[in-house]
Amino acid sequence: MRKVLAVTGIRSEYDILYPILKEFEKQGFEVCVAVCNAHLSDAQNNTYKKIEKDGFRIADKIDCLLSTDRLTQRSKGVGLLIAGLTQTAEREKPDFLLVVGDREESIATCVVGNYMDILTIHLGGGDPVYGNSDDPIRFACSKLAHIHCATADEYAKNLLKIGEDNWRILNSGNPSYVNIANIPQKTREELSGFLNFDIVSKDYITLLKHPLSSEVEESGEQMRLAIQSCTEFAQTHNLQVVGIYPNTDPGSYKIIEEIKKGEELYPNLKFFKTLPREVFINIIRNTLTLAGNSSMGILEAPFYKLPVVNIGNRQKGRLNAGNVEFVDYNKSHIIQALQKACFNQNYRAKIQELKNPYGDETSCKKIVDFIKQIDTQDRRWYVKTKLC
Amino acid sequence: MRKVLAVTGIRSEYDILYPILKEFEKQGFEVCVAVCNAHLSDAQNNTYKKIEKDGFRIADKIDCLLSTDRLTQRSKGVGLLIAGLTQTAEREKPDFLLVVGDREESIATCVVGNYMDILTIHLGGGDPVYGNSDDPIRFACSKLAHIHCATADEYAKNLLKIGEDNWRILNSGNPSYVNIANIPQKTREELSGFLNFDIVSKDYITLLKHPLSSEVEESGEQMRLAIQSCTEFAQTHNLQVVGIYPNTDPGSYKIIEEIKKGEELYPNLKFFKTLPREVFINIIRNTLTLAGNSSMGILEAPFYKLPVVNIGNRQKGRLNAGNVEFVDYNKSHIIQALQKACFNQNYRAKIQELKNPYGDETSCKKIVDFIKQIDTQDRRWYVKTKLC
Amino acid sequence: MRKVLAVTGIRSEYDILYPILKEFEKQGFEVCVAVCNAHLSDAQNNTYKKIEKDGFRIADKIDCLLSTDRLTQRSKGVGLLIAGLTQTAEREKPDFLLVVGDREESIATCVVGNYMDILTIHLGGGDPVYGNSDDPIRFACSKLAHIHCATADEYAKNLLKIGEDNWRILNSGNPSYVNIANIPQKTREELSGFLNFDIVSKDYITLLKHPLSSEVEESGEQMRLAIQSCTEFAQTHNLQVVGIYPNTDPGSYKIIEEIKKGEELYPNLKFFKTLPREVFINIIRNTLTLAGNSSMGILEAPFYKLPVVNIGNRQKGRLNAGNVEFVDYNKSHIIQALQKACFNQNYRAKIQELKNPYGDETSCKKIVDFIKQIDTQDRRWYVKTKLC
Amino acid sequence: MRKVLAVTGIRSEYDILYPILKEFEKQGFEVCVAVCNAHLSDAQNNTYKKIEKDGFRIADKIDCLLSTDRLTQRSKGVGLLIAGLTQTAEREKPDFLLVVGDREESIATCVVGNYMDILTIHLGGGDPVYGNSDDPIRFACSKLAHIHCATADEYAKNLLKIGEDNWRILNSGNPSYVNIANIPQKTREELSGFLNFDIVSKDYITLLKHPLSSEVEESGEQMRLAIQSCTEFAQTHNLQVVGIYPNTDPGSYKIIEEIKKGEELYPNLKFFKTLPREVFINIIRNTLTLAGNSSMGILEAPFYKLPVVNIGNRQKGRLNAGNVEFVDYNKSHIIQALQKACFNQNYRAKIQELKNPYGDETSCKKIVDFIKQIDTQDRRWYVKTKLC
Repeated sequence: MRKVLAVTGIRSEYDILYPILKEFEKQGFEVCVAVCNAHLSDAQNNTYKKIEKDGFRIADKIDCLLSTDRLTQRSKGVGLLIAGLTQTAEREKPDFLLVVGDREESIATCVVGNYMDILTIHLGGGDPVYGNSDDPIRFACSKLAHIHCATADEYAKNLLKIGEDNWRILNSGNPSYVNIANIPQKTREELSGFLNFDIVSKDYITLLKHPLSSEVEESGEQMRLAIQSCTEFAQTHNLQVVGIYPNTDPGSYKIIEEIKKGEELYPNLKFFKTLPREVFINIIRNTLTLAGNSSMGILEAPFYKLPVVNIGNRQKGRLNAGNVEFVDYNKSHIIQALQKACFNQNYRAKIQELKNPYGDETSCKKIVDFIKQIDTQDRRWYVKTKLC
Repeated sequence: MRKVLAVTGIRSEYDILYPILKEFEKQGFEVCVAVCNAHLSDAQNNTYKKIEKDGFRIADKIDCLLSTDRLTQRSKGVGLLIAGLTQTAEREKPDFLLVVGDREESIATCVVGNYMDILTIHLGGGDPVYGNSDDPIRFACSKLAHIHCATADEYAKNLLKIGEDNWRILNSGNPSYVNIANIPQKTREELSGFLNFDIVSKDYITLLKHPLSSEVEESGEQMRLAIQSCTEFAQTHNLQVVGIYPNTDPGSYKIIEEIKKGEELYPNLKFFKTLPREVFINIIRNTLTLAGNSSMGILEAPFYKLPVVNIGNRQKGRLNAGNVEFVDYNKSHIIQALQKACFNQNYRAKIQELKNPYGDETSCKKIVDFIKQIDTQDRRWYVKTKLC
Repeated sequence: MRKVLAVTGIRSEYDILYPILKEFEKQGFEVCVAVCNAHLSDAQNNTYKKIEKDGFRIADKIDCLLSTDRLTQRSKGVGLLIAGLTQTAEREKPDFLLVVGDREESIATCVVGNYMDILTIHLGGGDPVYGNSDDPIRFACSKLAHIHCATADEYAKNLLKIGEDNWRILNSGNPSYVNIANIPQKTREELSGFLNFDIVSKDYITLLKHPLSSEVEESGEQMRLAIQSCTEFAQTHNLQVVGIYPNTDPGSYKIIEEIKKGEELYPNLKFFKTLPREVFINIIRNTLTLAGNSSMGILEAPFYKLPVVNIGNRQKGRLNAGNVEFVDYNKSHIIQALQKACFNQNYRAKIQELKNPYGDETSCKKIVDFIKQIDTQDRRWYVKTKLC
Repeated sequence: MRKVLAVTGIRSEYDILYPILKEFEKQGFEVCVAVCNAHLSDAQNNTYKKIEKDGFRIADKIDCLLSTDRLTQRSKGVGLLIAGLTQTAEREKPDFLLVVGDREESIATCVVGNYMDILTIHLGGGDPVYGNSDDPIRFACSKLAHIHCATADEYAKNLLKIGEDNWRILNSGNPSYVNIANIPQKTREELSGFLNFDIVSKDYITLLKHPLSSEVEESGEQMRLAIQSCTEFAQTHNLQVVGIYPNTDPGSYKIIEEIKKGEELYPNLKFFKTLPREVFINIIRNTLTLAGNSSMGILEAPFYKLPVVNIGNRQKGRLNAGNVEFVDYNKSHIIQALQKACFNQNYRAKIQELKNPYGDETSCKKIVDFIKQIDTQDRRWYVKTKLC
């Protein structure tokens, strides 16, 4: 029986790992998880407990999130994680290490896999985002990892460009779709009851906006404009606006202030903190459009065939499935884009027909099928003979 | 005054850094050095003391070399170094981090530079060596570093291939040549006296062979064949053989056993442990050829216009300036190659004319001139907007 | 010039170090500070900035506070601190390490001093508090430290009991009194204005109560009772109640809930979050009594000649200067004790005459005078020849 | 089933743990071992493999031995061990941590036990040795550990003196005797054959001398004198001298040089590097006396009823069972003491009657019987209410 040791540091990334790990178990792999970073923080609700409840064996809890906002936090954190994970990896002797993305746990896992001679599977390589310290990390991970699962064909091609061997790369698509597909349908009546907000007699749009690290100062004002634009548009068309709270990155305090002011000013606006996943998914299923700047609009909305209005620079440059309108912070532009997203029937019909570049709900199976056929005795998987 | 914090873990890499740091000081930079890894080990002669004697300020001594031969050594070692270096980098607030190559200190420095937002200069990127865990590290460093000094034009091009911005790359050539050029000449009489071995009345060839991590088991037998071939060839032509002990990598014990046997069997053979640099350089200046598998044969011999016989797989695939014959472990092939290297006057004349792809003794000046013109306030140096 | 490296992790402990460090500087020592733990946390207001403003050189910032409430936090934190502080101590080569109390930084500093062969001064040994994991740490520090500054004669005697050499022990008394003595007087009018609460026309009592780790569950109810008792007593005598928020230990949330309820119920009660030190000290100078369970009541109130009502188990067993009444959670007992503290003129007169076992404002001078006469070349200071 | 997690860093200390762990298993405890430090070093023969062969589950391998002779080695090493062991302890959730002595693993384990709230058993407390950095560590461990197993009644009393609760202390005696008792007898003919040295026709004395950290410079000269004295005495009485190589502490190089010279000079002298335990034990069983300064002479020789000549300061001040003569570095004094040890029949008879203060082969059973009756739910074991 082959063993996979997955490494995860935060809820969002675990949501992607979860269906893959379940598929690994289904296909007879032994699975265990090293949890670290934000999962172990009270401030982040100790999300490691969810992983335990999901039935995975916790190989180790590796504390590496330092309580500071200085730049040392992530730098020293990577060091602590590498030191701790080395201990775990030697004891567990997994056949595969598995990690996602561009964060501290990604680079730490790839470094450990490289030196400990354990095949390392990296999910999400070749996806160029620009503007923060995560981006080069993602590409450094690709140079270190032995096996690449890319979420789009274009990203797989980027991995070829930077010199990775073709046979190490799988275009698996986005593994989180199977999660979404598995969530049971809820009626609008149920949702309305849960939210205590009428989205039965009226249609609604959804607003979800995070701060951007290079525009922290402007985040409050930007949110005010976004709220104004959405509520005005909604009033014109007798719609409701369902808002979702931002993540906890710097700038979020200012956004929350604007949320509170907005809720007092506009009766057609209501914001929600953390919604159970099955509620959130059903809100997205039923909304006319998603406005804001969530990565969901890029990566998951195509799966729902949902038109998206992306406001500002966040997500700019990522692969657009054809469902996203990018607009700047200008009220009339935003309203125009909302108009198109909600009521332009040609556009909406075209989105129904889009071919999702991020794959479909078969990603997890593709990944495990690919890994299964790997001969872990074959040294060519461990030693790269092509690097550029 | 701008400040450079160099990070070094071992003598060989410090030899490359030394002339660059001297040039930085000459051009008005403040220089300090974080020493780590083998420099701090008694088993490696505490080479950090040499750095102190050279007059550089030691910013911190960061212990990270664990006393074990298990794979955990390098993996956990990187973690410890990142943790320690983060502390140093925050205190020193250098304008630039400077590191060489493909070892633990290379990746640790690039990770710290990335998260601590300090411009990181990486020397030696784009040079594809294959067969061990260092190779992917070198390329991961290139994805993280902000400024690249490549030692050959072909290597600079490899950096472009993997998606680095053109304006971040300098083809500086090999910085160690200035070291070599500065070593005073010694006569063969002086060398002979120092070695207590006659290389005045007779010409000599030099043998320097290290183990290869993927061929550890064969290292003894391979050395035996190399010694046999060299001494037989030498006897035929009335030459001496000057041997140098290998590095301490796994397999070296078996090599040393063969050295001891060889010295008893062959009167024209004598091996030396560690030679002072000024002796070693002058031995190379006067030898007919260098046999074995040292990286010197590839990277430095072109500077001496010296023919080289590279035996076995180590160094295979690196850029050949035209002075290297690659042969396998076959006595007649080795002897043939030695014959050509020592006595084929056409071949030797052509080597005198070679254009060295690894540059010349101006590398250090090129590097410092390049760094000097960088505006450290300009954020485009810090944030990569091209990654593939 | 001799050098002292002080190690500090939190504001409260730095308040004790500050006047000692100033005295060291005054007497010609070089002083530097390694800051760690809560000082570096945003959640704790980055108090390291205050140390910088006070003009001390920061030797290193050593992140060791992990963002988790699991028990691993303090355990792994000590490990990180030892690793980081070793690096600092080797570079700085201080003549003395200086640390206070019973926390992670205390044990880490004493371990580093022991192995790095640096004379270690420990403040606050021999003071037995019971009930949490800090207590054995304090006594382990005493076995490791080379020089002991005890805050009371009884505590100095405890150090003798556990086998420490007499000549290593100074009964310095509590060093924080010099801080208090230096704070300028403020009139009650000024205080009243600052607090926006009338303490001019009416006398007042002060309430400051922290949670206790072994009674976390009861902390809310205990606070409710304390508030009830104080406000009832105050109403009877036409007094005001000035409350201070608790520290952030587990149980504090429940206390804060009761504070909020109390402020709505009782008009003669007002609570304050963090008061500037000069305001706080002057409130204490003018209050009739201090109720609650702050260590201030034990350690500092004797200096003010202030009667204290200590409610519950916290502080029980510490040396009572004669100014503290211990009562349990029983309203009539509390009110009785408040009555005695505020209005029993015999008792209050006796407190004015108390001999403070915790010393006076000469502590810092005593400490530096003691250290000054130590011959750091004399090996008997480094090697203990009496351990029990 | 209750679980014990033992922590061990070096062969000598594991020899003490081994019979205790076997007894724990016999009495139904689950046992696992965290190995660290020298056990994981190639230079120390990777002794962790012996632990695996002995059938114990390795909970984790925790690298913490840094490859340097600077003082940072042990200081930073403790930090790394605490960090790694915290991870192990949280995962394993043992009922008891178990550790021996006065080394890095002792203090690291006691710190982890204290903060992680795991009952910590410390073996060997209250035994005052003087002269190096280990000694205060031993006593700091006693202040932190929850349960003490002392190897002599006098040591148990020392623990009372430093304020430990009576009911936490067991005078178990030395656990290693059961090891010795279990080693099968070998005839002198067998030994002679193994050593290739005649100890059949002649009686012999045994010499085992280590360096002392405070007398490193003198270690060569001291060894020369010891060898001279032993061989002269042996010649006079027609005896042989069986020598054992020293440990690897600083000073050992000089000792080894004298060993080599001595073996050339004296035909009745032969030294041995590492002897299998069953050979070594039988040599001790048959020798006339043990000369030198091994702790064996103090702690184990009483079990053999063996007279010992302790030369120099090492071991001075430890409890003498009546079998040890302490002499200084003076040839006639040494020879006199050897004379008494080998041939004074009154003295030898008295030693046969000695009451061993270090107990007997029942120590392991005593320890496990004591631990077994502990109610791990009873919080008084975890929280010390007596500290001085």
